Amino acid sequence: MDPARLAEVLSPALAWLDYAGVFVFAASGALLAAKKQQTLVTFLFFAVITGVGGGTTRDLLIGAPVFWIGQNAMLLVCIGAASLVWMLPRRLLEGRLLDWLDAGGLAAYASFGAAKGLAFGVAPIPAIGMGVLTACLGGIIRDVLAGEPSILMRPELYVTAAALSAALTVGLVLAGLPVAAAGAIAFAAGFGLRALAIIRGWSLPGYDR
Amino acid sequence: MDPARLAEVLSPALAWLDYAGVFVFAASGALLAAKKQQTLVTFLFFAVITGVGGGTTRDLLIGAPVFWIGQNAMLLVCIGAASLVWMLPRRLLEGRLLDWLDAGGLAAYASFGAAKGLAFGVAPIPAIGMGVLTACLGGIIRDVLAGEPSILMRPELYVTAAALSAALTVGLVLAGLPVAAAGAIAFAAGFGLRALAIIRGWSLPGYDR
Amino acid sequence: MDPARLAEVLSPALAWLDYAGVFVFAASGALLAAKKQQTLVTFLFFAVITGVGGGTTRDLLIGAPVFWIGQNAMLLVCIGAASLVWMLPRRLLEGRLLDWLDAGGLAAYASFGAAKGLAFGVAPIPAIGMGVLTACLGGIIRDVLAGEPSILMRPELYVTAAALSAALTVGLVLAGLPVAAAGAIAFAAGFGLRALAIIRGWSLPGYDR
Repeated sequence: MDPARLAEVLSPALAWLDYAGVFVFAASGALLAAKKQQTLVTFLFFAVITGVGGGTTRDLLIGAPVFWIGQNAMLLVCIGAASLVWMLPRRLLEGRLLDWLDAGGLAAYASFGAAKGLAFGVAPIPAIGMGVLTACLGGIIRDVLAGEPSILMRPELYVTAAALSAALTVGLVLAGLPVAAAGAIAFAAGFGLRALAIIRGWSLPGYDR
Repeated sequence: MDPARLAEVLSPALAWLDYAGVFVFAASGALLAAKKQQTLVTFLFFAVITGVGGGTTRDLLIGAPVFWIGQNAMLLVCIGAASLVWMLPRRLLEGRLLDWLDAGGLAAYASFGAAKGLAFGVAPIPAIGMGVLTACLGGIIRDVLAGEPSILMRPELYVTAAALSAALTVGLVLAGLPVAAAGAIAFAAGFGLRALAIIRGWSLPGYDR
Repeated sequence: MDPARLAEVLSPALAWLDYAGVFVFAASGALLAAKKQQTLVTFLFFAVITGVGGGTTRDLLIGAPVFWIGQNAMLLVCIGAASLVWMLPRRLLEGRLLDWLDAGGLAAYASFGAAKGLAFGVAPIPAIGMGVLTACLGGIIRDVLAGEPSILMRPELYVTAAALSAALTVGLVLAGLPVAAAGAIAFAAGFGLRALAIIRGWSLPGYDR
């Protein structure tokens, strides 16, 4: 499909996912800053890097204009998320609320990233990679900057859920489904798998040979 | 303003800032290598990454040709800075000299990065982000590569000074000032704030709720 | 030389180096995942990042289309390398086999990256930088993500061997040699230097003033 054409189709159907994903990931960046007793400036920096880091890398790789450069709205979403976390008392920030928001952002962003990749003419397997990258890279950069072990090094099902959403999106679009339908199914599957990992502690086996 | 036109205006007025910024940051990269007793090759690698890392990321994000790719001069500046640090005795490298050079580079680069962003049609808030990134990202990459806690995680006023220079540049240019005047005022403000942080140990309060 | 023209010349002569380099570096990424007892998903992620990370950064910097985005083959090579390492027993993964494969990948990639840089109109010194980056950056990202001290911080001759291959490629091409001949000589020199470092433990002196 022609990029401009598919981008047009994507816009109304998936644009809200983009804002929601940025907000959730930005909040998770600010939350890590809160855990480390950082300043408001660090909250902002972590919120922006976590919020837009994955999508930025995707856009650079596929040759798209970087999605937050031509507008103020995306960074304002990050600033809003950071300010909100800064103002909330610590006890509201604990517990699993963020895990659930993050699970939604993960599945949404993996689908969106894979669909955007296809829209820009990326081959199927790299398009799946674009979905995984969009969903996971912001959080990985956040952890590396904070000196934390990244999600990559933990056995829980996280990257796997993103890969499921991304692969389903690519597979269903190539099978002829409309992008919105493929995205919805892929979102549900990825979110469901991540939910099971959160609730039941599902994880993958490590190398042991 | 037309990018080519503004770039033309920027060239004579701010080009020296670009070389000075690269030199100062390259020296700070080499200095960290010296502190860690590294080899000359590591000096060079750290000098290059710290010297051009922030501006490189800015150029990729705004869709500009990467500033050091088409010429030899910028990398020669980095090689010169690394060689100089390599030849100096340790006691000259200690003390606050580098903090002061770095403060100048920080304020200059934040103004230059924000102005270049505007020149390439970036929206105002992302343009401020471009200034902060240009000034801070090289040092952050340097610290992550060396396994040091990055400036991001320390409470002193550093990123804040860059943000002040970048925001003033964008605000004054949008208010109609010539770029060179806006840059000079923004440079002075950012450098002044960073100077107070160095002299008086000013820092921001951490999250404590 | 015209980029399209040189790219055409490079294709048959050096394309196999590209696949071999990706495979070797992908395997080294998976091997680090194995050492850290990670899951298969982490094997894949590390294999991809290490396999294509350096070349991806090179392509972004020189303004080339990212080499693995338009095809499935490169990521399949990474997936193959990760799966192979996953299936092999640990004792086969130990010893120096990987060091030797890596030495080959290092020299090949440094030559290829420098030649590709020249083909895209990069100035000589940045072209040498492109070779070093192509050869070393994937491994550096891999080490940072895994929380390991990167090769940058160790005194052994590693980055130096890449720099030798890259500099010889640029020098010999500028001196008028055909790209294939320059690449072969440069490969042999870089591989030889790295081999001496592996066999005799050659390293560079650290800063000590």
